[in-house]
Amino acid sequence: MTQAAERVRHEGLRAKIMSAEQAAEFVQNGMMLAVSGFTGAGYPKALPTAIAERAKAAHARGEEFKVGMVTGASTAPECDGVLAAADCISFRNPFQSDPTLRNNINAGNIAYQDMHLSHVEQQMRQGFYGSFDLAVIEASGITEEGKIIPAMGIGHGNEALKAAKKIIVEVNTAQNAKLEGMHDVVYDIGVPPHRKPIPLTGPFDRIGSPYLECDLDKIVAVVMTDSGDRNSKFADPDDNSKRIAAQIIDFFNHEVKAGRLPKNLLPLQSGVGNVANAVLAGLLDAPFDDLTGYTEVLQDGMLDLIIAGKMKSASATALSFSPDALQRFNDNIEFLRDKIILRPMEYTNNPEVIRRLGIIGMNAMIEADIYGNVNSTHVMGTKMMNGIGGSGDFTRNAFFSFFVSPSVAKDGAISCIVPMVSHHDHTEHDVMFIVTEQGMADLRGKSPRQRAKLIISNCAHPDYRDQLNDYFDRAEKAGGLHTPHILSEALSWHQRFVETGDMRVK
Amino acid sequence: MTQAAERVRHEGLRAKIMSAEQAAEFVQNGMMLAVSGFTGAGYPKALPTAIAERAKAAHARGEEFKVGMVTGASTAPECDGVLAAADCISFRNPFQSDPTLRNNINAGNIAYQDMHLSHVEQQMRQGFYGSFDLAVIEASGITEEGKIIPAMGIGHGNEALKAAKKIIVEVNTAQNAKLEGMHDVVYDIGVPPHRKPIPLTGPFDRIGSPYLECDLDKIVAVVMTDSGDRNSKFADPDDNSKRIAAQIIDFFNHEVKAGRLPKNLLPLQSGVGNVANAVLAGLLDAPFDDLTGYTEVLQDGMLDLIIAGKMKSASATALSFSPDALQRFNDNIEFLRDKIILRPMEYTNNPEVIRRLGIIGMNAMIEADIYGNVNSTHVMGTKMMNGIGGSGDFTRNAFFSFFVSPSVAKDGAISCIVPMVSHHDHTEHDVMFIVTEQGMADLRGKSPRQRAKLIISNCAHPDYRDQLNDYFDRAEKAGGLHTPHILSEALSWHQRFVETGDMRVK
Repeated sequence: MTQAAERVRHEGLRAKIMSAEQAAEFVQNGMMLAVSGFTGAGYPKALPTAIAERAKAAHARGEEFKVGMVTGASTAPECDGVLAAADCISFRNPFQSDPTLRNNINAGNIAYQDMHLSHVEQQMRQGFYGSFDLAVIEASGITEEGKIIPAMGIGHGNEALKAAKKIIVEVNTAQNAKLEGMHDVVYDIGVPPHRKPIPLTGPFDRIGSPYLECDLDKIVAVVMTDSGDRNSKFADPDDNSKRIAAQIIDFFNHEVKAGRLPKNLLPLQSGVGNVANAVLAGLLDAPFDDLTGYTEVLQDGMLDLIIAGKMKSASATALSFSPDALQRFNDNIEFLRDKIILRPMEYTNNPEVIRRLGIIGMNAMIEADIYGNVNSTHVMGTKMMNGIGGSGDFTRNAFFSFFVSPSVAKDGAISCIVPMVSHHDHTEHDVMFIVTEQGMADLRGKSPRQRAKLIISNCAHPDYRDQLNDYFDRAEKAGGLHTPHILSEALSWHQRFVETGDMRVK
Repeated sequence: MTQAAERVRHEGLRAKIMSAEQAAEFVQNGMMLAVSGFTGAGYPKALPTAIAERAKAAHARGEEFKVGMVTGASTAPECDGVLAAADCISFRNPFQSDPTLRNNINAGNIAYQDMHLSHVEQQMRQGFYGSFDLAVIEASGITEEGKIIPAMGIGHGNEALKAAKKIIVEVNTAQNAKLEGMHDVVYDIGVPPHRKPIPLTGPFDRIGSPYLECDLDKIVAVVMTDSGDRNSKFADPDDNSKRIAAQIIDFFNHEVKAGRLPKNLLPLQSGVGNVANAVLAGLLDAPFDDLTGYTEVLQDGMLDLIIAGKMKSASATALSFSPDALQRFNDNIEFLRDKIILRPMEYTNNPEVIRRLGIIGMNAMIEADIYGNVNSTHVMGTKMMNGIGGSGDFTRNAFFSFFVSPSVAKDGAISCIVPMVSHHDHTEHDVMFIVTEQGMADLRGKSPRQRAKLIISNCAHPDYRDQLNDYFDRAEKAGGLHTPHILSEALSWHQRFVETGDMRVK
């Protein structure tokens, strides 16, 4: 049996197999596309390049060729990257991390909407983006009945298939065929006012079907690919990350002893990145068993907790591994199949479920200010880094919400604790704990000035403490004493960095 | 039968009736109190003055006397006001609006935590504030079995009774005895990870009991009072408010015609204040029937929609009326008893319920910036006005979220559209529509620069448009083009107002 026959088990859809170049003919200038993909997993590998080539040819003929594009989250160079390089994206949301796409956003070439991931599927359904011309979805296979077996991520795939007028499925033979059965897809969330409660009361509840489904007549092409996901290597946890992890784990110990946290903690959510991954790595040696995960992206740290028997189950919308971890995942897939569940992002990131389960949310940040506001997205207030992703969905509804970062960046030229953040993604109302390698600030039940004293003394790097205290002292003399600020100076640290390359006052 | 006997039907509790002065003896320096009250309704009327007198006497003797205080939301002069004047509040959350309390917060005398109201009850239960020594709860009566009949608001009363070691009940004979039966209280929301879905699928579902309950042995005193709630008069809708209302109603019409909104709209939430009230008044003459409300405070506008037969039912946690509206409420209470339901704030403001029902959220703001960030709380970045209240709970989870304000304040010296808000309560990720008397900006599915153009041209006052365009144009030339800003100038409008009393460049 050919690989195509093995993976595309539906005869009618097998007849629709064509090359990426042929399938790209369905894409026209001005179309709105829903493209699968979530943090380097589950994105189409072949079609974007074919679309990019089509766009470049059109541009060479002097014709306009741009599309709007709603994804699950970030994709990879062979999707966002090639399309951005071909200058054929007019609008893009809700999250990205590709350097070429990012540069084009910050150069003003692409209109990018940075949004809460829990909002994406419901806003598509509610018609906020008009109609979708085409969905492009990666799959690991198609069943005899034409049901789609998702790959390493679902993201908004379920809604993309419903919303789009036409569908192209990329079936990727490089994905493990044993992914079949690991997904859990529900279709009946509906639109208000006719919605029911989401019946998830534990991270590992199964409430749907393992397949994506759609009107098969809408599928206009099936493209076969054989190429892996973007698997970036994580940095090994450095001393700063280990210190951050140790403090969070100490706090867990303290809360368990006080009876305010169950012995197996509460479902863990971890944002992407090295520091967040290091916290999970730290739990390998911590005295907590039967852990659970309820997160959007499951990365190396959580995988290793499961393989080590420390975490009993985890729910996510995508699996994003380093090359080594991917090998461990594939080697252990029989063991992992009943411990990992992949859901649409509307469920992993849903405030209803997050608040009910009482998630412990741990997310990286770019900077925090002395009053506990957090910037997750913007470099020096104007340039987009990646996006807010699900950090707001989890933080706002968490039992405990942590933001973590080393206290300085760029060899000390940037302080991650500033008088006022240059962009606000999580406000003072949402942030409970700030943790750097210097220490932790517990902001719960505190006024802005009480928070400022804690953040400066516990979290700021010693090189910046005097400078922060000086600002805070002068601000207290300047005006309102609820949230003291000197407005003409509040953003001067960023301005100084832009002008001199250093936030430090020399 | 005496009024006390009629209202306090439980014999054992009737024996605990004492004067406010006697009851105040239970309050000691350093205690943490949970005090009922939500936006001028349901707060204790007699005890706070007695506590304040006790504090003043202690201070006169050179003794320390301060308490921490968690309420539902704002109370009134005879509660927050007298306690703040007596300098006996050390800590206060989650919302306030009393001038004396506000002045003390902004003078740095009181540590105030401004927080999402949906977080209050769960954080009390989760032990974030330590233990509560005393709850002080207003009631309209006590049943034969010792169940407490709430007054015009519930707020956090259910959790206060559970959390506190001792309880004082103020039974207020000025409250209508027919309030009995209008409340709906659930006790089993629990703590994670053992929570179940909240079984509310419509604004008027009854899922609990009409009474507050507690361990009767904890009740140490019952105090009889006979004094009305704080009933402030609303301003009659002015031209600006009417223009704002008309635009929102036009938009509803448009969405109903497009089939994206049901003919009876979706459950309405309205923040407190004159403009929000005016929008509801505008619906009296709009072509929508069978409206529903799911809000935290039900004010004159919503009451009149119900009395007029335009709104079939509404759910809230408190009733806050002008004197005239209170008269209409009492005159029509038999008609209204099966159309208004009062719940604990953990239910009215719960993200789970708000997102499921698909609320239309309409809230006032202090200012918005050109990128769609909203300041709801701070005057010129440093001084607290009232607080965020439930605006974040509703906005983040709404089907549609509107922020409304006249485009200028102080006779034009303040623009409510600024380059950067001086405090962030609702970020660019949360705000869908900004409406002033000048026009409406629909920010959905737009990048920051696309939003800026719309907000400046549609919402800003003509006197400020050139000044805003000038900032935006120069910011586009200055740096990153995702969210263009000139950091040294972003807050200069507020600084100019502080220095000159006018944001306009002369």
